[in-house]
Amino acid sequence: MNKINVGLLGCGTVGTGVAKILFDKSDLLTARTDTVINLKYIADLDIDNNRGLSCDKSVFTNDSMKIINDPEIDIVIETIGGETIAKDLILEAIENGKHIVTANKALIAKHGNEIFRKASEKGVSFFYEASVGGCMPVIKTIRESLIGNIIHSVNGILNGTCNYILTRIAEEGIPFDEVLKQAQDEGYAEQDPSFDIDGIDTAHKIAILASISYGMEINFEDVYVEGIRNITPFDLELAEYFGYTIKLLAISKIEGGEVDIRVHPTMIPSNHILASVKSTLNAVNIKGDEAGDVLLYGHGAGMKPTASAIISDVVDISRNKNTNSTRISSTAHLNRKNEIRIKPIEQVESRFYFRFSVEDRPGVLSIISGILGDYGISLESVQQKGQKKTGYVPVIMLTHLASEKSAKDALIEINSLDVVKQPTVAIRIEDNFE
Amino acid sequence: MNKINVGLLGCGTVGTGVAKILFDKSDLLTARTDTVINLKYIADLDIDNNRGLSCDKSVFTNDSMKIINDPEIDIVIETIGGETIAKDLILEAIENGKHIVTANKALIAKHGNEIFRKASEKGVSFFYEASVGGCMPVIKTIRESLIGNIIHSVNGILNGTCNYILTRIAEEGIPFDEVLKQAQDEGYAEQDPSFDIDGIDTAHKIAILASISYGMEINFEDVYVEGIRNITPFDLELAEYFGYTIKLLAISKIEGGEVDIRVHPTMIPSNHILASVKSTLNAVNIKGDEAGDVLLYGHGAGMKPTASAIISDVVDISRNKNTNSTRISSTAHLNRKNEIRIKPIEQVESRFYFRFSVEDRPGVLSIISGILGDYGISLESVQQKGQKKTGYVPVIMLTHLASEKSAKDALIEINSLDVVKQPTVAIRIEDNFE
Repeated sequence: MNKINVGLLGCGTVGTGVAKILFDKSDLLTARTDTVINLKYIADLDIDNNRGLSCDKSVFTNDSMKIINDPEIDIVIETIGGETIAKDLILEAIENGKHIVTANKALIAKHGNEIFRKASEKGVSFFYEASVGGCMPVIKTIRESLIGNIIHSVNGILNGTCNYILTRIAEEGIPFDEVLKQAQDEGYAEQDPSFDIDGIDTAHKIAILASISYGMEINFEDVYVEGIRNITPFDLELAEYFGYTIKLLAISKIEGGEVDIRVHPTMIPSNHILASVKSTLNAVNIKGDEAGDVLLYGHGAGMKPTASAIISDVVDISRNKNTNSTRISSTAHLNRKNEIRIKPIEQVESRFYFRFSVEDRPGVLSIISGILGDYGISLESVQQKGQKKTGYVPVIMLTHLASEKSAKDALIEINSLDVVKQPTVAIRIEDNFE
Repeated sequence: MNKINVGLLGCGTVGTGVAKILFDKSDLLTARTDTVINLKYIADLDIDNNRGLSCDKSVFTNDSMKIINDPEIDIVIETIGGETIAKDLILEAIENGKHIVTANKALIAKHGNEIFRKASEKGVSFFYEASVGGCMPVIKTIRESLIGNIIHSVNGILNGTCNYILTRIAEEGIPFDEVLKQAQDEGYAEQDPSFDIDGIDTAHKIAILASISYGMEINFEDVYVEGIRNITPFDLELAEYFGYTIKLLAISKIEGGEVDIRVHPTMIPSNHILASVKSTLNAVNIKGDEAGDVLLYGHGAGMKPTASAIISDVVDISRNKNTNSTRISSTAHLNRKNEIRIKPIEQVESRFYFRFSVEDRPGVLSIISGILGDYGISLESVQQKGQKKTGYVPVIMLTHLASEKSAKDALIEINSLDVVKQPTVAIRIEDNFE
């Protein structure tokens, strides 16, 4: 019988979930893999609380180096989080020839390239399925199931907090601030929610997926990000009227060696399956040249779904270890020779939903559509919708394809008009998923 | 550089798709896998037509044994289909130590146990991702991504022809026979459509998935099957009124060592994501004890999606081959010791939609509900809906949970009443996916 020794760095929520599976399901895992996966040490600052785990107290240590320097340990699972200690420990563990499993998306998004290179040099596996999409096997699907495909696009709803908030605004018509407060009270949003609601978490994830999909280095800094703070019940109601739903969508598409990669509130057709993704659930749609569209849907976070993904990585590495192979190298996705670059956001084209708040008098529409025309933006429809409030009316325009630069410049000019009473709301529309 | 030699048995639609990827994307596959995957021979009766493939004519042979007896061939891909020649050739290839990749679901559903045993004895891989769900990595997700999970249920829409027909009946109100004829003209249904529309194809697939999910042998013969021939626009309209959609659903759930496994038209809640699966698309929802629900959605058939899945199996085996390992054995899912048995259909409990066609006179409702009560079937709602036609009216009853046996016996008694003018329509309801 093969035996693999595992060390766990950090025993918070996810770490506890991982330890629980390794202890409680060791018979099941051994039967399924022909390998004993032995969780030898758990390193954490708190070693007095056994977290309801069925293990001896001696498994706990407050010295991470006991794991990193133990020649018997094959795989190090990092569930500390953050980018400082976690990074140092991972690099030291790799230096010592350990294989690594982590769910630390922020770390990978910011320091992944460095870690991948180091892992590649040392010939160890660095696996991170749990960093994107929780229990959904997004990375495995792209790297293994779609290996015969050129990936054209990866689009998804990758943050449960944002999706929960947008779902509640849409269904109950409650303003953003109020839903956020309730979500915080219910535990669906952090006390400092900006990481989620400003789209940073989603940007980390799409940067990781784009890297794997297109064979490029991770370029988190170049991902255009816009969060959901400014989404109102009124815009969600109008979206519905036009046959759309608003989601915080992570978009990445490749065209002619350039990757269009961005995160922002997006109107998607209500009859598209991504529009059915509600509450805290996540979904990712991957389009390959052979497979067409493959969509994965499930819990993108949480103790058990994340632990489930970590276990799958541990088992995959165990199988490699047994055969002395790094089955899928951490830099395998970088094999392609051609340079892939990120398309500058100014050059990206979208359709737009504009909601103008204007004085209710003749000629206003013509002024605004005139300015849009000057910037080469043509209109698909113009509607005056909703109640007149304190002297101004909402005017909604849906555009044909327009560049980000034209849209931005046109709005600066329009927002400076006397007849425009509030900054214009602009939401991008994506119709062509399939 | 590693090198793997592959032989292809059968070069019809799917086989051509596979050959095309192996020839046209050999650089891509080599870069991604560090392995040259060489398609050495293609065996087919027709060796004069090169199918637009960019290969030398000498690759074609009409002698399958040239592949099976070639000691250089590592992997045999079977895309002949059917259960006779394909089976014999696969068994001979296994005997000769070849790894096998196939999409042949009928073969696996009927002869899988025998083939698995033989593959296991000879220590070769027998992979069949493409047999279920086309490009969706259903088998890989269950076997690898959810390896730390006990699988509770696998439910899905697994036949594109049926889903296409049901979608069109629902959206256009056209009767089954007419939609079927159009589907045949458009190429969405076979000239002999019974394999699809009677649910056999779906039953093959769910038998395969249940086997992997619950660690049991394949028991295709014991899967309860009902097709979609009797679904009317009127029932789809009524389903919508009650908040449901009708899909040909493959169901498998495990409870207390017994597997409830069946295929039949099923009313599912319209707001469930499976209800959004339209046209020829497929979807599978897998529920694990750690991951919760994971749903996969995509093209379940077709040349390119199927070829894409076959290529992923070929690459997985290549990686094993390079390291001299059978990474996941064909019988790995049979490791569990406990006996799993299929629950007799009579004991399965469902909620039911009954549509009675009865005489429009006082007392009829009380007679019918009385008989249902005698069989222990209690009602959630009773409605008289729709037009009176030629002397009878439709009465719809939605029941609480009732056993198949009670429902069957009660309907026999009810259908024999003078006041009942047509056989009662019975459709099962599934509410509790999540």
